[in-house]
Amino acid sequence: MKAVTIREGGVLELAEHPDPQPGAGEVLVRVRAAGLNGADMLQRKGGYPAPPGAPADIPGLELAGEVVATGPGAIRFSEGDRVMGIVGGGGHAELAAVHERQLMPVPEGLDWPQAGGLPEVFTTAHDAIFTQGALRPGERLLVHGAAGGVGTAAVQLGAATGARVTATVRNPDARAAVEELGAGAAIDPDGFAEHGPFDVVLELVGAPNLPDDLKALATAGRIVVIGVGAGFKAEVNLLALMGKRGTLRASTLRARPLEEKALTARAVEREVLPAVAAGRLRVPVAETFALADATAAYDRFTAGGKLGKIVLLP
Amino acid sequence: MKAVTIREGGVLELAEHPDPQPGAGEVLVRVRAAGLNGADMLQRKGGYPAPPGAPADIPGLELAGEVVATGPGAIRFSEGDRVMGIVGGGGHAELAAVHERQLMPVPEGLDWPQAGGLPEVFTTAHDAIFTQGALRPGERLLVHGAAGGVGTAAVQLGAATGARVTATVRNPDARAAVEELGAGAAIDPDGFAEHGPFDVVLELVGAPNLPDDLKALATAGRIVVIGVGAGFKAEVNLLALMGKRGTLRASTLRARPLEEKALTARAVEREVLPAVAAGRLRVPVAETFALADATAAYDRFTAGGKLGKIVLLP
Repeated sequence: MKAVTIREGGVLELAEHPDPQPGAGEVLVRVRAAGLNGADMLQRKGGYPAPPGAPADIPGLELAGEVVATGPGAIRFSEGDRVMGIVGGGGHAELAAVHERQLMPVPEGLDWPQAGGLPEVFTTAHDAIFTQGALRPGERLLVHGAAGGVGTAAVQLGAATGARVTATVRNPDARAAVEELGAGAAIDPDGFAEHGPFDVVLELVGAPNLPDDLKALATAGRIVVIGVGAGFKAEVNLLALMGKRGTLRASTLRARPLEEKALTARAVEREVLPAVAAGRLRVPVAETFALADATAAYDRFTAGGKLGKIVLLP
Repeated sequence: MKAVTIREGGVLELAEHPDPQPGAGEVLVRVRAAGLNGADMLQRKGGYPAPPGAPADIPGLELAGEVVATGPGAIRFSEGDRVMGIVGGGGHAELAAVHERQLMPVPEGLDWPQAGGLPEVFTTAHDAIFTQGALRPGERLLVHGAAGGVGTAAVQLGAATGARVTATVRNPDARAAVEELGAGAAIDPDGFAEHGPFDVVLELVGAPNLPDDLKALATAGRIVVIGVGAGFKAEVNLLALMGKRGTLRASTLRARPLEEKALTARAVEREVLPAVAAGRLRVPVAETFALADATAAYDRFTAGGKLGKIVLLP
C-alpha cells in the first residue's frame, strides 16, 4: 500500500509500505478519507513521536473507510461496513489495521470527507466539554480558537446541548460562520474576559489566556486545556481559583490506552452520532486533497485561517 | 452571652453580645467546645471578612455543644441533643444559632474537645480528598503539611480508605506521630517529588509546591489546593498537565451556600462518623483554652509546630 511517509527534515513522501495485517480484534480498513490534525504537524517536525504500536513514520490520527478484512476475534464489523475512528497514527495511508473497539459506524448519508474529518474533532470536543468539563444545559461555555476543527465541533455540541456558547475567533471574517454553527456570540479574543462569567472554558490556544480564563470563570467553573500552541507556561492565581472553587484540567486523547479511547468512541456513538445522522451536527470541511498532495495539504493546514477540516482522500 | 470579639488592630476581647435567636430551621446551641482554624487568624488580621449572615466581629468556624432551643420548623434535633458542625462564623462564643442542616450528631463517647475540633478538619479533608480529589482505595495520596489539623484528618481518612499515604511534615519531631495516624511515610518536604507518583495531592501549603506536585503527579492524577499560606502565585506547565491528563482543583468550604455545606455534613455523617464512633478515627487535640484565654489560644495557633487542634472550651 501507499502511505504518506515522514522523511528527514519533515519532507513528506508518498511511499510504498507492506500492507498492514489485522491482528486480534482488529479490522483492516481501506481508507477513503483521513483528516489532518495539529499533532500531525508536530509529528512532521519531529517533536511528537508516534505512540507505541502505531507506525513510526506514517502520520494520520483519524480515518474513515470500508472494512476489507477482519482479524481473529473481531466481531463488531463485517466486510463492506463503513467505519470511522481515531487511531494512534498511520491514518494517512491507503490501508490501516484498527482495533474494532476504536471504530464507530459511519451514519448513513454522511459523505467520506465529513466522515474522515469527524472522529478526532468531535471525540476531542465531546470528551473535553462533557467528560472533562461536565458541561450541563443552560451553562455558559467559552470556546477559544473556535474557528478550528475542534472549536467548530465544540460550538455545535455546546449549542445542541442547550449551553450558551461564546466563541473567540481571531479572524473577523470567520465570526459569522461560527455564529451560524450555534455560538451566541463570536468575539475578538482581546478582552474576552469581559464577556464572562463562564461555567466551562475550552482552552485551545494556550497559557497566555489562562489569567483571563480564571478571571472570567464562574463559581465552580471548569477550565479544560487541550491545546497550548500559543505557550504552555501558565500563571495561576491559586487564591482566585480557591475563591471560585474552580477546576483546571488538561488532557490529550492520543496517549490514552485502548480501553479509554474505546470509551470515548462509545460516548460519541451514543451522544453525537444520532445528531449527525439527523443533520443537526455537521463537519465543516475546508478543503480536500489527494493522498499524493499531502505536502500541499499539510502546508494548507499550517497556514491557518481556514474554517473546518483539511481532509486527505486516498 | 459572652463571645470572643475582634477589636481594632486584631485585639481579641471577651465581650457581651445579645443572645442569638434561632431563626427558621435553626437551633440554638450552648457551645461546649470550638476549634481554631487558619481562617480565624486571617479574620483577626482583618483580611478575611465574615460571610453574609455570620456575625462580623465574632470568629469561630466550628463548634460542638448542646441544643438549648429550636427555631420555627427545626425538626432534626431536640433540646439536650449533642451536636457539632461548621458555621460561617460566631463559633467562639457561649451561644450560637445554627441551621439544623449544617449540624451533625456527636457520636457517643466523643468528648467535647474532640467534638469541637472535628467538624472543620474532617469535613475539609473529606471534601478535599474524596469529593474534590475522588480518592479511591489503593491509590497513592500525598498530604502536604500533614501535622496540622486538616493534615492529620486527611492522613487518617486516606489510610482508613485503603489508600497509600505519604505525608510531608517539616518538623522532624512530629513525623512519628503522623506515621502513627496511618501515613506509610512521613517525610521532609524538601525533595518530596522523588517519593511519587501520587494519584491525589492534597496541597495545604501553597504555590511553591506546585511545580513539584505536578512532577510527582501520576497519570490522571488530581492536585487539590485548599491552603496557600506559603504563596498563591503558581507556575503551571500546561503541557505537563496535558501529558498526565491531570486536574488542578482549588476549593474552600467557607464561601459555599447552605445547601452545599449541608451536603458536606451529610457526607461526613455517612462516611466519617461511623469510624469515629468505632474509635478508628480520632481528633488529635494539642491544647485547650478557656474562652477568656482566646488571645493565648490564637497566639498558640499562630506559633505553629503543634500536632492537632487548639480548642476553646466556653
